[in-house]
Amino acid sequence: MTTLVASGKTKELYTTDDSSVLRVHYTDHTTAGDGLRNELIENKGAVNNEISSMIFTYLNENGVATHFIERVNETDQLNKKVEMIPLEVVIRNFAAGHFQKRFGTDYLQTLKEPVVEFFYKDNDLHDPIVTKSDAIGLDLIQADKLTQLEEDGLKVNQILKKLFDKMNVTLVDFKLEFGINEDGEIILADEISPDSCRLLDKDTNESLDKDVFRKEAGDMMPGYLEILNRLRAAI
Amino acid sequence: MTTLVASGKTKELYTTDDSSVLRVHYTDHTTAGDGLRNELIENKGAVNNEISSMIFTYLNENGVATHFIERVNETDQLNKKVEMIPLEVVIRNFAAGHFQKRFGTDYLQTLKEPVVEFFYKDNDLHDPIVTKSDAIGLDLIQADKLTQLEEDGLKVNQILKKLFDKMNVTLVDFKLEFGINEDGEIILADEISPDSCRLLDKDTNESLDKDVFRKEAGDMMPGYLEILNRLRAAI
Ligand SMILES: Nc1ncnc2c1ncn2[C@@H]1O[C@H](COP(=O)(O)OP(=O)(O)O)[C@@H](O)[C@H]1O
Ligand SMILES: Nc1ncnc2c1ncn2[C@@H]1O[C@H](COP(=O)(O)OP(=O)(O)O)[C@@H](O)[C@H]1O
Ligand SMILES: [Mg+2]
Ligand SMILES: [Mg+2]
Repeated sequence: MTTLVASGKTKELYTTDDSSVLRVHYTDHTTAGDGLRNELIENKGAVNNEISSMIFTYLNENGVATHFIERVNETDQLNKKVEMIPLEVVIRNFAAGHFQKRFGTDYLQTLKEPVVEFFYKDNDLHDPIVTKSDAIGLDLIQADKLTQLEEDGLKVNQILKKLFDKMNVTLVDFKLEFGINEDGEIILADEISPDSCRLLDKDTNESLDKDVFRKEAGDMMPGYLEILNRLRAAI
Repeated sequence: MTTLVASGKTKELYTTDDSSVLRVHYTDHTTAGDGLRNELIENKGAVNNEISSMIFTYLNENGVATHFIERVNETDQLNKKVEMIPLEVVIRNFAAGHFQKRFGTDYLQTLKEPVVEFFYKDNDLHDPIVTKSDAIGLDLIQADKLTQLEEDGLKVNQILKKLFDKMNVTLVDFKLEFGINEDGEIILADEISPDSCRLLDKDTNESLDKDVFRKEAGDMMPGYLEILNRLRAAI
């Protein structure tokens, strides 16, 4: 027997026979503009399930502890159940998105060092940015855990930058979510896909990610499939 | 001879015979809502000039290097000329203002530790919040200087909290600006006044600061004069 235990904007979480394991179903839902736009894009769930599975496997093999166990069918994967930390960890190598708008930089302006930002995951508050000092003052998380999130984020960035370089893809920025496992350890959870990364073809600077959908610039699936195919060739 | 070298929303900066010294004139201008409201409030310049002079003198005597030299008349003081760092350093002991709104906390919710936030001083960008990581990525300032701003801010907070405690006043939050002096050292500049602090009478929680103006809750000057009088008694 399997029960839906939780669902969000794009994924559904189901129980399995093992209480420490969830089956995560990747849907075709695609959202933008703080959830105001929400469309079904055929095949996206399956493609993101496969991309996310490949990237998590690669990270597991490269010394990053993740929730990923195995992909079980086209749209579903098994993940270790964790207690989610309500922070989005965003790592930026070049200026884009909110960051670009907030600071009025050029699109893709180079950053002196990779930037790590935290956003408090709260739909009612529209996921506000939270500094480390804010997070500690608000007692959202302990200081040492925040430091670990930052270090883990930068480590994932190093590993993925190299992987995407091999694929002739620029990793502009991406969002991670972490959780606490049964042993009280912080592990990487949620997903890593073109929904949660900005990825550009190095030759053309063409977006191979959700920015195509955000900007209503046509069909985003060719870019997603391109990432999947280049991953298959690179890993 | 004296020339106007710069002016902002509330103060005018004039040259003096000494090229390293400015005469800062405190005007009656009072602004709120990102500068959208701007009114002249009689006597505010003189009261803030005196309050700011007393607080800077107190900080100078308590081991904090500031730009303050001396008050020269009702509305003017002499300050060391500095190269301003384009960051507002905000220190919070209790939730209020933007912080309260951003995180949906109660007004005056206690913080586990004092919070230090940085805002990038840029009118066109509406002074966006900038994390330490953002500031370094954008090359706004070096990492060691940021750390010093944070430490100096917390030190000023410790000193002022004690001073205001003696005055039966709660220091909710305040904004500092720093600059680099001729010797390349970071010193505290700008002003410290009820324009830049949230100050509450401990018995009534009544605002003795610009929040009265922000909230259009009547004449703000009685609160400013109350702070001035209690400072005179305490220092
Ligand atoms: N390993 C996991 N254990 C428990 N919850 C998880 C795990 N991985 C992701 N989640 C959570 O699953 C939920 C559904 O994901 P998603 O549809 O992306 O939600 P959201 O709308 O918050 O982006 C989210 O709350 C996410 O944090
Ligand atoms: N010691 C100093 N040397 C040079 N500039 C200063 C000094 N202290 C304050 N300033 C600057 O004086 C200007 C005028 O102040 P103000 O009217 O408060 O401006 P603002 O509109 O930026 O708040 C500001 O740009 C402020 O940063
Ligand atoms: Mg999600
Ligand atoms: Mg000012």
